[in-house]
Amino acid sequence: MDIVHECIVSALFLSHGLRKDAVFHVVLNGPPNPPRHVTIDGQRLHDVRTDQQTWTTILRKILSGKTHPGIATDRTGFETLVKGKSESCQILVLEEDGIPLPQVEFTGDPLFILGDHVGLPQIAEKFALRYGEKVSLGKTPYLAAHCITILNHHLDNRERC
Amino acid sequence: MDIVHECIVSALFLSHGLRKDAVFHVVLNGPPNPPRHVTIDGQRLHDVRTDQQTWTTILRKILSGKTHPGIATDRTGFETLVKGKSESCQILVLEEDGIPLPQVEFTGDPLFILGDHVGLPQIAEKFALRYGEKVSLGKTPYLAAHCITILNHHLDNRERC
Repeated sequence: MDIVHECIVSALFLSHGLRKDAVFHVVLNGPPNPPRHVTIDGQRLHDVRTDQQTWTTILRKILSGKTHPGIATDRTGFETLVKGKSESCQILVLEEDGIPLPQVEFTGDPLFILGDHVGLPQIAEKFALRYGEKVSLGKTPYLAAHCITILNHHLDNRERC
Repeated sequence: MDIVHECIVSALFLSHGLRKDAVFHVVLNGPPNPPRHVTIDGQRLHDVRTDQQTWTTILRKILSGKTHPGIATDRTGFETLVKGKSESCQILVLEEDGIPLPQVEFTGDPLFILGDHVGLPQIAEKFALRYGEKVSLGKTPYLAAHCITILNHHLDNRERC
């Protein structure tokens, strides 16, 4: 959950505010009841801070069936999620040997797919690539949360150009 | 200490490794005995992980006079630190109205100066600017740790060009 917390902060938090145009999805495949898909919508999220304790509490609450504004959970697995999202989003899978980020042509709302510290399982990556393409941040092996910060910064600058 | 922890991870950690060419400095001005200057050297750092508990334990240990490989502490204040570093480093102060990062000409080892979530005190910024110049990541107000990730990514790409 450490990594999930760090990724949420990178995806959704600015200094003194939230990214209202970002949505974070995580598919948890660990025991006891996988898969658990959690969606966090920056537009509707409230009562949150960046610290780990806040998010441990919120995620425990959500996974035990309670609610929190802007957060939803269901039983969607990775493949169903990607297939569904491909109808409205441009699917981009983070991989070292992908198209360099500055050269990616954005054709719609991008959905970036990242694995945890072990990386995306090969079978999941192969599945996602049916619907999208690989994008690369270069040869430096970043932590997952840092990848998200770099992607957001790239999109921030692109929108301003 | 939350913010310090997040900044340390952004400054020094890669996926499964450390940035051997990065050094992180923090000047703590809070009670009981300010200033406390802590230096963390990626080259000599050992026995660390990215989680908050690890760093809370290490920082407490260091501040109470014990040692940890790659970490040093002394009583140097912000102004003395900046003045000393200006002799060997290019001083760059993060500010929204600075030179856009992609246009900065790096003339030596850069030392980036950031405040916490409240920002750098005006008097500290004014002092630092005697020795350097302002650099900007654009109009998006990032968290301090996210600024560091963006700066590291920029330097990673620049080194490869």
